[in-house]
Amino acid sequence: MTPLAAKSPRVVVLSGGVGGAKFAAGLNAMLPAGQLAVIVNTADDFDHLGLRICPDLDSVLYGLAHLQDEIRGWGRRDESWNCLQALTAIGAEDWFALGDRDLAVHVFRSHMLRQGMSLAEITEHLVKALGVQNAIIPMSESRVSTVLSTDEGELALQDYFVRRRCQPKVRSLRYDGAQQARLHPKAKTVLNAPEIQAIFIAPSNPFLSIDPILSLPGVKDMLQNRRVPVIAVSPLIGGRSLKGPLSDMLESMGFEGSNATIAKHYSGLIDGMVIDSSDGQDIDELDLPTLVVPIFMPDAPSRERLAQATLEFVQVFSRV
Amino acid sequence: MTPLAAKSPRVVVLSGGVGGAKFAAGLNAMLPAGQLAVIVNTADDFDHLGLRICPDLDSVLYGLAHLQDEIRGWGRRDESWNCLQALTAIGAEDWFALGDRDLAVHVFRSHMLRQGMSLAEITEHLVKALGVQNAIIPMSESRVSTVLSTDEGELALQDYFVRRRCQPKVRSLRYDGAQQARLHPKAKTVLNAPEIQAIFIAPSNPFLSIDPILSLPGVKDMLQNRRVPVIAVSPLIGGRSLKGPLSDMLESMGFEGSNATIAKHYSGLIDGMVIDSSDGQDIDELDLPTLVVPIFMPDAPSRERLAQATLEFVQVFSRV
Repeated sequence: MTPLAAKSPRVVVLSGGVGGAKFAAGLNAMLPAGQLAVIVNTADDFDHLGLRICPDLDSVLYGLAHLQDEIRGWGRRDESWNCLQALTAIGAEDWFALGDRDLAVHVFRSHMLRQGMSLAEITEHLVKALGVQNAIIPMSESRVSTVLSTDEGELALQDYFVRRRCQPKVRSLRYDGAQQARLHPKAKTVLNAPEIQAIFIAPSNPFLSIDPILSLPGVKDMLQNRRVPVIAVSPLIGGRSLKGPLSDMLESMGFEGSNATIAKHYSGLIDGMVIDSSDGQDIDELDLPTLVVPIFMPDAPSRERLAQATLEFVQVFSRV
Repeated sequence: MTPLAAKSPRVVVLSGGVGGAKFAAGLNAMLPAGQLAVIVNTADDFDHLGLRICPDLDSVLYGLAHLQDEIRGWGRRDESWNCLQALTAIGAEDWFALGDRDLAVHVFRSHMLRQGMSLAEITEHLVKALGVQNAIIPMSESRVSTVLSTDEGELALQDYFVRRRCQPKVRSLRYDGAQQARLHPKAKTVLNAPEIQAIFIAPSNPFLSIDPILSLPGVKDMLQNRRVPVIAVSPLIGGRSLKGPLSDMLESMGFEGSNATIAKHYSGLIDGMVIDSSDGQDIDELDLPTLVVPIFMPDAPSRERLAQATLEFVQVFSRV
């Protein structure tokens, strides 16, 4: 990466929530201001008590704003839960953990959406207000909803994820509304900008976080016809996901929990992969350039080391 | 009051927020379950960040549920303000003090209103959920809004009250929407019920809290043709209001700050008054039966003593 001040981002990340937010936070720390744009999955978004909840956008926002809870992996650090307790006391729906500080974003966003502001504009406002110096872009303004076909029937994502604690066995997924939606114009602009030097697929759940973005009309074509290297950071360590249901989903859908499965999943769309040091032997099964580094990111230094390594890895590709 | 279990309330209170909520809480403590109905002003209600805020309904609810903050005089005790701080940090409107626990009621009510539940139904749900055993009824389902004509122009109530901290001089008031609104059918039912033995006008600001109720079509007629004693508890001690802008409003509208002014204001609608012990000399100016007792209510015992005294005072009236 040329560390010059750039008006247009040079690195684009396609991201979901937790793991993606950590990876994006590392890049945010290592790149000069303005050089990063994170395009975020919104197929997890849902309405709860009249509030629009955008879990992945919030995770990325909090990650880049240094507000994320490192231990819990989602939501804000130093969070309190007094509103949630009071919701329980009045018999309101309380299955979704609304933190008091987190609520500010939900209340504000829901209000501004009703006032006619777009999700991207609201996100941009939040990014600026919280001092983030890179771009966070929702994948689309249209509603897209991940629906899981499971052994207990069809489930909306939050029903599967929060209410049912990922217990049902997932057979397949679909992204309702994706065909009618379009990639956000701001996302399209950064992906097509001549300044772009690399596109990363964050270590997010491919099915829940990345595929919704890829399912938007034209996005796969855009990656297939890419001018710059596209690098996927594996969401697996030792064949398993650190958090979330990816391992269970791979198993119930009949896939091996391995980096080869991830590589195959993104086949034709990526030029290289980044896998964990503990999975070095997987290189033999991968027929594309692969960087082997620690991808476990429990803290800022580990996030920044991974970001730096992946940025250097991009230099390997002759197109750069 | 006959202390028999009653299906229909025997005592009705017309109430605003703080002072009215304290008085109603005293009656709630002294009367058997089910014998009290509080009809609450909703002309203070407003929308803030997409949330419907009903300050007086909430004060009465928290008062009867023993959740009120005794010192602040509004909102919930043991309150935290983490959401509000986070709203400030993201540049959202933060002039209205949203407590974290208080937010639960605002979020729930706003959501249920959008779902088509009525304000009275939502209030009834909250009453039951919080273990309150008497009725709290919004004065109307229709939106009525107090507008103040001041030396700084027309102001919505919350603009005057919170944003401008009651600084502008009030010349007159109007209740937008009152003529098109109607007294809530549930309020009408309790006021007309044969079981009713007394109606109290709470020690609330007459202009901001009681007049909006009286301005609904038919309410003044109903009080003028009353079958049971109507007793007003004075909102003044030593000619001044304890909290709120009543004293300033009386002055700027050219009224003397005295119980005679209050009596005249409710003339033709009330049979008796309750005034503070320190104002005993005012009796000479009042040409209606008057009870002189301490009306300062800093705690539960003082609220309960006042409630007991006013309930006994009702016995004075021959109609009972």
